[in-house]
Amino acid sequence: MSLPKGFRYAGVAAGLKAGGALDVGLLVSDRPASAAGVVTTNRFQAAPVLVSLRHLASGRASAIAVNAKNANACTGAPGIADAELMATIAAAALGIEQTDVLVASTGVIGRPMPMAQIDAGLRAAADVLGDDPTPLSLAIMTTDTRPKTAGARAGATSIVGVAKGAGMIAPEMATMLCFIATDAAIDPALLSETLADATERSFNTISVDGCMSTNDCIFVLANGAAGASEITRGSEAHSAFRDALTDVCASLARQIVEDGEGISKVVTITVRGADSRSEAVLAARRIADSVLLRCALGGADPNWGRVLAALGTAQIPLDPNAVDVWMGGELLAEGGSLGPGDLEKAALALREREIEIIVDLHRGSDEASMLTNDLTAEYVAINADYTT
Amino acid sequence: MSLPKGFRYAGVAAGLKAGGALDVGLLVSDRPASAAGVVTTNRFQAAPVLVSLRHLASGRASAIAVNAKNANACTGAPGIADAELMATIAAAALGIEQTDVLVASTGVIGRPMPMAQIDAGLRAAADVLGDDPTPLSLAIMTTDTRPKTAGARAGATSIVGVAKGAGMIAPEMATMLCFIATDAAIDPALLSETLADATERSFNTISVDGCMSTNDCIFVLANGAAGASEITRGSEAHSAFRDALTDVCASLARQIVEDGEGISKVVTITVRGADSRSEAVLAARRIADSVLLRCALGGADPNWGRVLAALGTAQIPLDPNAVDVWMGGELLAEGGSLGPGDLEKAALALREREIEIIVDLHRGSDEASMLTNDLTAEYVAINADYTT
Repeated sequence: MSLPKGFRYAGVAAGLKAGGALDVGLLVSDRPASAAGVVTTNRFQAAPVLVSLRHLASGRASAIAVNAKNANACTGAPGIADAELMATIAAAALGIEQTDVLVASTGVIGRPMPMAQIDAGLRAAADVLGDDPTPLSLAIMTTDTRPKTAGARAGATSIVGVAKGAGMIAPEMATMLCFIATDAAIDPALLSETLADATERSFNTISVDGCMSTNDCIFVLANGAAGASEITRGSEAHSAFRDALTDVCASLARQIVEDGEGISKVVTITVRGADSRSEAVLAARRIADSVLLRCALGGADPNWGRVLAALGTAQIPLDPNAVDVWMGGELLAEGGSLGPGDLEKAALALREREIEIIVDLHRGSDEASMLTNDLTAEYVAINADYTT
Repeated sequence: MSLPKGFRYAGVAAGLKAGGALDVGLLVSDRPASAAGVVTTNRFQAAPVLVSLRHLASGRASAIAVNAKNANACTGAPGIADAELMATIAAAALGIEQTDVLVASTGVIGRPMPMAQIDAGLRAAADVLGDDPTPLSLAIMTTDTRPKTAGARAGATSIVGVAKGAGMIAPEMATMLCFIATDAAIDPALLSETLADATERSFNTISVDGCMSTNDCIFVLANGAAGASEITRGSEAHSAFRDALTDVCASLARQIVEDGEGISKVVTITVRGADSRSEAVLAARRIADSVLLRCALGGADPNWGRVLAALGTAQIPLDPNAVDVWMGGELLAEGGSLGPGDLEKAALALREREIEIIVDLHRGSDEASMLTNDLTAEYVAINADYTT
């Protein structure tokens, strides 16, 4: 992975997690950077989200400070003060302005922040900043079973991203955090627009938007350290940058789905023949959100009826007698009823880790895909006793 | 239970279920009756639903024919022919018009109907009609662990209802069937209106509407056999009848939730302080639909953060700093953050089979309640291999 110039990273063990695991992290640019973010639309936005939004208003930032185990969400005015304090501590340790620090937290909702540990952790992190983003990617893990990083190049510039998120279950995703560093030169407005576009084509195809947790955020810092000319709207450099940023986001989004809590399968749901892309997205999301279907997939049951039953609850004026469903490469439903596909072959294909479901509405020529996973008894067990 | 006059019931074993269990049933009025129905809004309405809607258009019917194990859904034109044939067979056996028979099916989607068995079953059922609705209530069971019946009286008239449904999981409920017989005299239009009202106050408070299965239906037959005067709109008799019908529906709805697949708890979610009843319903439903919260409840985890996180995704302009949450009688969140309630006492209360969650939005004076249940590993296991 080719890392962007002018960035350093750290992850330290501040005692929030048991057993000396890394739990407090920093991402730092050696110079002021353009900054942009996409955050949760949940009405209960966590304190670090609210504070980061204020700090993002300037379009500039040079560090991200983060902790795991405590979400600092639903913590009222003391929570806001704690999130501000996190930024203050990191700024002091790094010798930068407090408003140039973005903050993020993930973990349990509604508990006071253990600020003594976070204070010590952020100071320690500032002392061990290095070129490797791995410690940061480890520090943000919660129920994740593995760290998630991705990189891409666009011309002379590089992009690296780290992310966490494993409680992926539509329609309520446990917190997803994603921090991206790039040495491209780009003004904050264009960076923000490009990030929104990349998010739409990546994280938003895994059922994140509109149903986000209290803490979800994606932050990007672009410090221009590669020395390339500033990216201008509509230029060739802009499309190359947008594609590279989308690649990084898409890789991280896929890693999140693949690391879903207790999952056994990664499921791609493609809806085609839709009248518009938004209709295709709505249909694909509705199918991906079906708990009954996702249980069936966990059991490798080619239950195409549950695909149609879920689709039928989407507010789409479709013709029920025109819909085809493929599962595992077999045409199991044709024109809304039993198709010629081989159920046993489909059942065999559903035993694989990668599953594909294709639905054709035969209404138009637009399509969309969603990535999801199966629902297993392990998922339920993990989420039955998360706080206790 | 005081049974309505002029009705007989049957349930027989037609070999659709293993081990000689009852699987084909009839509900028959000895005279023409006013008929009304509420059916699924799923775009993939099953063949029996489509046929029954046609037969309901006259506002009159005198029998309901039903089978378990096969839903006759997503079965195309042959499925429609089979549903019509079910009505024809029942009508011939009972000596009534084909269009006076409503039909219903529950079971697996997308399989051709075993018409030879259903034919024999319906004929056998017509031969064993009796005064006890129990065999009918047994014949419609699928994953239900117990039959569901309820009765009520209004003046000189009686109402009895049978229902099935156990795969209750918001937002996709496995098929719910409910058949109600009453000897009240009421015209079809007023009966239909009254049923819609009773449904709104009962089945629709358990997350059914808008997210129904392909086969859900509630049918009511009113044959006037009690000999009481016809019920007129707005009369005292009408309110008594409406209340009694609502009681029957509410009892059956509650029995369905209590018999949820693999559940360990029944959860009442009350949202108060809403700006309108529809806002309260929206909020309560959003919370009830949270898979993460329902996992937490299965584990008796007083995770009030998940209540707020789910609420925060409803499209309601609420003040996050004004919301209170009680779980198990403890005020766990006050003004959107940690409240004074005792978490350990709440955890203890969540170990009970009956759980109450109260959310106060402090926006107005309207409220609504939803009944749901917890999500357990058993539920996932049951639904992982339903068709195979």
